[in-house]
Parts: sequence; structure tokens; C-alpha cells
Amino acid sequence: MAFIKRKNQHEDDLGFGNRPMGKDQRMMNADGTSNVKRTGLPIFSSDDTYNWLISMSWRKFMFIILVAYLIINILFALIYVSIGIENLNGAPGITARDHFFDAFFFSAQTISTVGYGHISPTGFITSCVAAFESMLGLLAFALATGLLYGRFSRPNAKILYSKQMVVAPYKGITGLMFRLANGRNNQLIEIEVQMVFTINEVVEGKKTRRFFPLALERSKIGLLSLSWTVVHPIDENSPLFGMTNEEMIDGETEVLILIQAFDDTFSQTVHSRASYLDDHIIYNSRFASILSQDENGVTILDLAKLSSIEPAA
Amino acid sequence: MAFIKRKNQHEDDLGFGNRPMGKDQRMMNADGTSNVKRTGLPIFSSDDTYNWLISMSWRKFMFIILVAYLIINILFALIYVSIGIENLNGAPGITARDHFFDAFFFSAQTISTVGYGHISPTGFITSCVAAFESMLGLLAFALATGLLYGRFSRPNAKILYSKQMVVAPYKGITGLMFRLANGRNNQLIEIEVQMVFTINEVVEGKKTRRFFPLALERSKIGLLSLSWTVVHPIDENSPLFGMTNEEMIDGETEVLILIQAFDDTFSQTVHSRASYLDDHIIYNSRFASILSQDENGVTILDLAKLSSIEPAA
Amino acid sequence: MAFIKRKNQHEDDLGFGNRPMGKDQRMMNADGTSNVKRTGLPIFSSDDTYNWLISMSWRKFMFIILVAYLIINILFALIYVSIGIENLNGAPGITARDHFFDAFFFSAQTISTVGYGHISPTGFITSCVAAFESMLGLLAFALATGLLYGRFSRPNAKILYSKQMVVAPYKGITGLMFRLANGRNNQLIEIEVQMVFTINEVVEGKKTRRFFPLALERSKIGLLSLSWTVVHPIDENSPLFGMTNEEMIDGETEVLILIQAFDDTFSQTVHSRASYLDDHIIYNSRFASILSQDENGVTILDLAKLSSIEPAA
Amino acid sequence: MAFIKRKNQHEDDLGFGNRPMGKDQRMMNADGTSNVKRTGLPIFSSDDTYNWLISMSWRKFMFIILVAYLIINILFALIYVSIGIENLNGAPGITARDHFFDAFFFSAQTISTVGYGHISPTGFITSCVAAFESMLGLLAFALATGLLYGRFSRPNAKILYSKQMVVAPYKGITGLMFRLANGRNNQLIEIEVQMVFTINEVVEGKKTRRFFPLALERSKIGLLSLSWTVVHPIDENSPLFGMTNEEMIDGETEVLILIQAFDDTFSQTVHSRASYLDDHIIYNSRFASILSQDENGVTILDLAKLSSIEPAA
Repeated sequence: MAFIKRKNQHEDDLGFGNRPMGKDQRMMNADGTSNVKRTGLPIFSSDDTYNWLISMSWRKFMFIILVAYLIINILFALIYVSIGIENLNGAPGITARDHFFDAFFFSAQTISTVGYGHISPTGFITSCVAAFESMLGLLAFALATGLLYGRFSRPNAKILYSKQMVVAPYKGITGLMFRLANGRNNQLIEIEVQMVFTINEVVEGKKTRRFFPLALERSKIGLLSLSWTVVHPIDENSPLFGMTNEEMIDGETEVLILIQAFDDTFSQTVHSRASYLDDHIIYNSRFASILSQDENGVTILDLAKLSSIEPAA
Repeated sequence: MAFIKRKNQHEDDLGFGNRPMGKDQRMMNADGTSNVKRTGLPIFSSDDTYNWLISMSWRKFMFIILVAYLIINILFALIYVSIGIENLNGAPGITARDHFFDAFFFSAQTISTVGYGHISPTGFITSCVAAFESMLGLLAFALATGLLYGRFSRPNAKILYSKQMVVAPYKGITGLMFRLANGRNNQLIEIEVQMVFTINEVVEGKKTRRFFPLALERSKIGLLSLSWTVVHPIDENSPLFGMTNEEMIDGETEVLILIQAFDDTFSQTVHSRASYLDDHIIYNSRFASILSQDENGVTILDLAKLSSIEPAA
Repeated sequence: MAFIKRKNQHEDDLGFGNRPMGKDQRMMNADGTSNVKRTGLPIFSSDDTYNWLISMSWRKFMFIILVAYLIINILFALIYVSIGIENLNGAPGITARDHFFDAFFFSAQTISTVGYGHISPTGFITSCVAAFESMLGLLAFALATGLLYGRFSRPNAKILYSKQMVVAPYKGITGLMFRLANGRNNQLIEIEVQMVFTINEVVEGKKTRRFFPLALERSKIGLLSLSWTVVHPIDENSPLFGMTNEEMIDGETEVLILIQAFDDTFSQTVHSRASYLDDHIIYNSRFASILSQDENGVTILDLAKLSSIEPAA
Repeated sequence: MAFIKRKNQHEDDLGFGNRPMGKDQRMMNADGTSNVKRTGLPIFSSDDTYNWLISMSWRKFMFIILVAYLIINILFALIYVSIGIENLNGAPGITARDHFFDAFFFSAQTISTVGYGHISPTGFITSCVAAFESMLGLLAFALATGLLYGRFSRPNAKILYSKQMVVAPYKGITGLMFRLANGRNNQLIEIEVQMVFTINEVVEGKKTRRFFPLALERSKIGLLSLSWTVVHPIDENSPLFGMTNEEMIDGETEVLILIQAFDDTFSQTVHSRASYLDDHIIYNSRFASILSQDENGVTILDLAKLSSIEPAA
């Protein structure tokens, strides 16, 4: 336990609490979301519905849209049939099943506002329902527009992280390093990185979780056009100084990465988070070069090699 | 009156004015809106209409949409009838009432652009009105789209606050505390809290309203993944030092809470405000634990217990 | 000329240049736009078109939409007629004028996607044009939606400024003051004000325009729930110290106001600018109270009295 | 080689790496994009598709929309024909080619939701496909709306840069200068400029690329209403001090310009970048005046003269 030597080091309370972590547990999932279950809230809320519809995968989103379209049309078809199919002028069906499908297709033509007119509503009630459904169609359309735009235009950084950290030689000492790059073709500028080291320790006889911000060789760059190897120099001021790999594993170490950048396409600040557990820290290795040049001398950045490491000399 | 001892303490003019508050009055409503009536402005303004339509409840919004749809169609129905129902080809009605409804449904079919065509316009004037109405339909649709998107995508933090503040033991002294948590499932980062204490006092013989920012144990956290108990330590620098509950009630005390955070889903800064009156401050109590663990060791945050307090040991 | 005494005062170059202003000229118009003609740019640019459509008045915007709708339909009507009116099935017209209007109304029904169908396209070319026009209708719709949303959701502060500045007694000396309030019902928070004094002076024998930032009693408030009287104390550090009204008029004085605030409804930073010329500065006056209370003790802010002044005691 | 004298000057690592540049190569293209090829990423990503559709020219965008509309209608036409053209009621065609075009126009009328109805679907499968296509039409419309709005509302500064830099007399010494202006009619406020000088040098026997931030006479202005000549004074602290034009060419010099501003129309921070190579630096010249006055004394800014230079006196 490396308690005493770290006593005077700055410890930053980041609001994560101080409960020790068990084996196989992590504060933050690898994708940066936090590892906490929340209860006691109402199940449905329009705010969270939006978040949910915006954040889900495209496949799931399209599936939900299609199912909602089917359900709404089935409901309206049942309404039209129950009012009386004779109020749908031009509906050719004879059997009850035919009537349902005539009503279903009429509903689809109404809600999408395509309105061919070979089937048309007569009678007061059916006309009212159709007028209401076409208004609903407009609003549903509006909603879909908003959701699609919201999904597309959501500023989300896609920072690529190396799969592991390395402890590599750095200016006579060693440094804890990871490598990152922009996973999208947009411009990220003013990128800032924070690295937080967290470990279980015995403080005043009680096992507790401690958090130490790690000083970086450089914590901000102006433009992320290539990859960036972020380095924490392990000098005497580092909480990692003199620590063995075993001590790290023993303390259920986790290194949290917090990144902020400005997305020049969307003109908005974006954030990204990641975390490395102790078994993702490789000793005596360094990152292999990710850059090369083509025949014209243009720099090539091969993102497939982002996690490539090689033995440190 | 605790006037003299507070004389040299920093008082921050936050722009709230200095008029004393009466019994049962508050600066800020519990939901963070300010308690002031504004007059002298024109009643209608397109900017404020947008604010109003965006901020109202969904129920009210849908009701307004529906009523607007009815009114517009009634107006156009009256226009079509007054031009002459014989210009609506295919309208089957015989009585004047039938004619009105034929015109009404034709209008609904036109403005929603569903246009079945079993009723269609003939004659120059009716065709013109219909062409204008369908253009209006497009714009109304556009408007609805914008409003729905605006409502959905408005970044609004839903910070949950404990119903009361407590004065609980804190590091040998006591502290004024409240607890907060994120009421939505999105990520809030870089949360900053300001706490302002406001009280009626006699300054230079005149009853006046004073405002004191309260120093916090910690005023900013990096990530709000659990709940956060915000603590103002009541030490000798605190304007609350040595003050009794009676003095607080006497001075019409109000504690204002101003919160700023970064919403990681919408990539925008959000704000939240709240206020506690003197009768929401509970002495000799502390907040009960809100965290537990499930069988797999995953942390559970039970937001239903946010306001749970227990007697201080 | 007040040159010598001001020599050591801080002068801030705000990038306005240093050309002296003539009689009746101002740097900044009263509404905060700058008073410069720009030439040498291409007349049309899609970026500026958007700005223009977003910034114009609603009346003008609606007029442009209507005219555009008419022109597009006239163009398509001419196309349909020139292809041959016999390709519009169901068009009842006999004379050439009737044919044009049939084509015009068919075009309107197509571009708005209402498509009644009592007139329908036949023949390859007419069908192609109609298919293209309906696609254009979709896009025009999309454009209108974007513009309407852009107009509505544009974050724009509506700061109300008092019509004149006053020089009123302030803490034993005098102060240059103006009053502002929020002209909308939304919440403005973290409002910051800069006041810049600008005057023609003879520097090194040459008439030049100088700019002096004015120190404020308070330059930032947390929440603009009432009105705010911004005060520049005219002490010995002020560039206005000892200056007469005549000297100000002589120097073509202008006071520029730059305001920044955070709009809590749109969660965005907004800006506002204003300017006062020398003849808007009233001496020996002060602002009359704008606050009152109703029968229930609720504070009333009467914005109609924002510019009310009264003689200084 | 100017290595020794620059040894103690501040060198800022901006994250560009330190690989020397070859002849005719540049770090940053003239339009501010970076000159790096990226590989190793999946070809298609929905995020980058959005970027791509938002950033392309209007001409290309419209072409893509039109082609997509044609392709989708051809696909659906083939589907309708393969189900059986007899299920399209009212389709007049006789030959196979006629059938295809009937189906094509029916598809266009369905997806645009114009739905005249002279051709209408019968039969279960054809009705299903038409219902699905009209839903797709709604979504395509929604997508187009989002893209058009995204294109229009994207905050992008259009800073105009002078085509060359000049080395002109400045306060007894010389200065490296360029001139900029706002290429749009919106208001840019709080404009900040960084200038970075980059050159190949031999450091510890190895040819390497070095970056020096250049100190500016003024790096920020409050309001860009006229043009702005940005000046780096070449004094003894400048990395350019005593450097000849030949040394610059020898070192493959590039001057990078990074600009940040606040766009008052969109209320968002915008960025712009540019770069000058050694052959764009003109010695013993200065920028000609760009300002004039019209007959009413109003300042005229002629942007066509932005790059006009004249011999230095």
C-alpha cells in the first residue's frame, strides 16, 4: 500500500464518492457511461423519451417508426370499420377481412396525406375521423422530421482510443501513455485532456476509493489533425511513482480519461470519456508509429494502427 | 438582529434590489422562476409567443393545436360557403348545414394536403382560395414541425432537489446542506453550485434586504453520476454563524440555489434554480443514505429517497 | 480640449479605427448595428440570403413567401400550357385564359402536394414535369420549415434601454447612468455590461477618434429579474472627470454599450449593443422609480417608465 | 540557419508533430483544412455522411437529391410492375414501356404524397407497397428538411484574408502583417487571432519542424466592423528577427493563422484558419487604404481592395 508517500499529494474530489470498488467492477464503462443503476424515477418522461429516441441505433429507430406506423393504421382501421365501412366510398372489399384492409389502406393514405381519393370518406363521423387523422399525420410527420434532424445533427465526438495504455521510457524516467485520434472526418480543435487515477486504499483504517488527477506533459492541443499520444510523466510527484503492477492490480486501479474539444463542423463543445483498468496497462512498451508518407510526400495517418505497440528499446 | 457581526462580511449584490420581503413572500418561486409582475410591455410579441408555446405543458400544447385546426377550418368553410357551395364539385350535401360540413371537410383535406379529390374546387375564386389554403397548410405544417422540434430538443436540466435543507454535524461544526441529483438519464458534467443567503436586516436604521453568497465545501464536481450533498460549513466566516432558527424566521430568510451544468446529450450549458424558505430548514438532522448495492455489487441510486432525512447522531 | 489630463489614462483600441467623426455621424446606430457601407462583395451569397430571410420582419417574410409561391406557379403554368393543355386530364377550360388558370391551379395542387386529382397529368412530358414539381414542393416545404424554425428559435435578446443617459449624484460625486431591462419574458442570467466613451481629440496635432472603456460600479449581475441602472462613477480616474457638456458636444461624443447575457430559454449566449450621442445625456437628473407593489405585496416592474427621469435633489 | 539565437525563445507544441516539410508541401491548405490523408477507418459512417451532405456545394447537393429521387422511383416502379400493373387502377399504358412509366409516375405521386388518384393501387400487395412508400416519402421529406435546415443554419465564418502578407515599417522597426475582413453581412464580435510561424530547422543534428507562436500588436478586437490589419512586430524577441527571405524559403516557412470569433447572428462561436507560404510574403510593401467616404461622409469599406498593397515609403 502506497499510502504514506501520497499523503501530501493533491487529491481531487470529482464527486464520484469514495466507496471502494470490488473485483471486476469499474466506475466508468469503457464507453464512458457511468456504472450506476438508477431507481425511484417515473418510468416515462417526455424528456427522456427524446433522449432515448435520439441515442438509439438507426436500425432500432427505423424499426420503431415502422411499428408505430402499423399500429396507428391498425387502430384507425378498426375505428373506420366500427363506424361503418359503407362510409368509405369506393372501398371495393366484400368480406370482413377485405373491409379491414380497405380501412387500413385508407388510413395509411390519410395519415401520410397522400390521399389518392379512390377511397374517400362520406358521412359526418367518418369525415371527422379522417380530418383528425390527417392532422395527426401532419404532426407525426413534424415529429419524425424533428427526430431525424436531432439524430443527424447531434454533435458527438467520436474519439478513438488506443485499446491499452503503455508505460514507456520518457525523458529519462517513464511515462503512462495512451493514444487518441479523431474517428470522424470533421475538425476537432482545442482538445483538452484530463487523466484521473483511482485506487482503493486504506485511509485511517478504512478501505476507501481515492482519486488523483495526473499531471500531463501537455493537456491541450490546438488542432487534432494527427494522432496524439497523451503522456503522464511518472516523476516523484506522481501518485504512480514507485508503484508496482501488483499494487495496481491489488488496488483495483482504474484510469479515467475526460476529454473536451470544440467540433468545428457543428460549432459546439463536445465531450468524450474513457477508462482503462489495471489489466490494460502494458509495461515496457511504446506505441508504434502510425504515420507514413505516400509517394507524393503526403502524410498518411493509419487509424487501424492506433493501438499498435512495440517493445520499448 | 445579527447586524454587527456581519458588517465586514462580503455582501454580493446580485442585482435583486434591496427591498425587504414581507411575510409569505419569496424572491424566487420554488421552481426557480422569479416572483415579479411585469407591466408596460405590449401584450403580444412573436418572440414571447414562441417562448410560451415551447414552455407550456404537452397537454395544453396539443389542445391549442387542435383548437387552432378547428378554427382555421371553420373560417375557410365559411369562406367556401359564402363564395358558393356549387363551386365545390362533388360536395353531396343538400341542406345549409350539410353545405357547411362539406366545406369544412374540404378545407381540412386541403390544409392537411391530403386532397382526396372526391370534393374538388371549380371556379376561379374557389380555386384561388384552395390554392392559398394549401400553401397555408404547408406553412402551418412547417410551424408545427419547428415547434415540436423546439419543444423536444430544448436543453433543460431536470435537477431534483431535496425538499428541505438540513443543518447537520460537519467536521466538528455544523453545515447547512441540501441534496441534489439528476432527474434525467442524460449525463450532466461540470456541475457548479452557488448558494445565496438572503435576509431582512436593519441597515442604517432602515429595513433592507441583504444577500450573502455562502462558501461551499465544494462548489463544482466533474460528473453528476450519483447524488450530491452540497454543504455550506457554518464556521465563523458564515453569515449564519451563531444565528438561531427564530432569527431566521424573523428575517424572512430565503436560501437561493443557482446551478449551472453542461448537458452532454445536447452539448449545451443548462441552468437550474431553486429556493428554500426558513421553514424548509430542519435542524439536527442529516440526509439518509440513498445508495445501495444489488446482488451483483452494482451501485443503486434510489431517487425516491432523495429527501429522506434521519436524526443526526 | 481635454487632452492633457487624459494622457495617462488607459485607452483601449477596440478595433473601430481612429478616424474622427463628423457632425451628425455615429459609429454605431441606436439599434447597435454599425454605420459602415460595404462594397466589393458579390451581391448574392447563400449564407447571406439565409441571414436576410431570418432577420427581416414577419410581414416582409410572409409577403416574400406569397410572391414566391405565385411566381413558381405561374412559371409551371406556362410550362404546362406550352407542353399542351390536353395533357391535363379533366381541365375544364375552353379559352386560352381558362387554360392558363387550369394549369396554374394544377400547379398549385401539385407543388403543395394536395393533389385532388380532378385534374391529373397524362403524357410522358407533363407527367415528368409534375413529378419534378411535386419533388420541388417537398423541398420548398422543407426550406420553409427550416426558415420558420430558424426565425422562431433564433436566440435574440431584447434588452430595453432608457432613451437617455443621466448624470446624477452618486456617493458624493456624480455618475453617468443608463437603465436597462429585459424586454422579453424569458430569463436572462449572468448579464455583463461594457461602456465605452468615444470622442474626437487632437493627438500629436492630428484630430483623431479616441476610445475609453468606462469603469462601472458593477459590471455583472447574476439574474436580470428587475431593471438595472448601470453606473459609471465620474471620479478622478474617469475620462469624463471635469469635462463640460460643451466639450462633449464639441468632441462629437458617443457612448457605446456592449451587453452579453445568457438566455436561459435557449441556453445560449446573446449580445446586445446600443449607443448614446452627446444630446442624449441629461445633467442633474436621475431615473424615477420603476418599481411598485400591488395590493398583495407583489413587486411590479413597469417597463413603460424605463426612461422616466426626475430632477436630481 | 537561425538555430542558436532562437534557442531560448518560447516554442509552443501545437500538436502538429515535428516532421520536416518538403518542398511544395504545406501543413495546412490555404482554406484551413489540414493536409493529411487518413486511412484505416470504415468507409461509411452515418455521422460522416451528415457532415458530407452538409458541407458539399449546393449544386452537388441538389444533384444528389434529384438522382436519389429518380433512383427510388425507378426501384418502386420495378416493384409495382413486377407485382402486376393490373393492380394500378387507371394506369392507361399498353406496352411494357408504358407500364413502367405509369408505375414510375404513380411512385412519384406516392412518395411525394401528392396522390392525384387517377392512378390508384388495388390488391393487397400493391396497396401495402404504396402504404410503405408513402411512409418512406414522409421520412425522406423529413430528412430533406433536416439537411436543408442544417445546411442553411450552419454557423460558418467567412473571413476574407489578404492574398499575401507584407513586411512593412512599423513603429521604427518592421512588422509582419496580413489583413482580414468579414466576408458576410453578419456581425462578428470578440475576434481573436493566433499567428504561428513554422520552419524546418536542424535541432541536435536532426532536421525537424519547429513552431513558434508570434506575438501580436493586438490579438483581440471587440467588433469587426471594418477591416483589421493584424501585425506581428519583428523585434528582438521575434523568431523572425534578422532572418532573410532566403532563410525563410530555405526553411519551407509557413505562417498559420487561427481565428476565433463570436457570430452574433447564430449566437455561436466560429473558427477560421488560413496559412501563408514563404512566397506569399512581400517585403517593403504595405496595405493600401481600403476605406473611403461617400458624399454623405459615410465610411465605405471596399472589400475588393483587401489585398491591395503599395510600396512602403
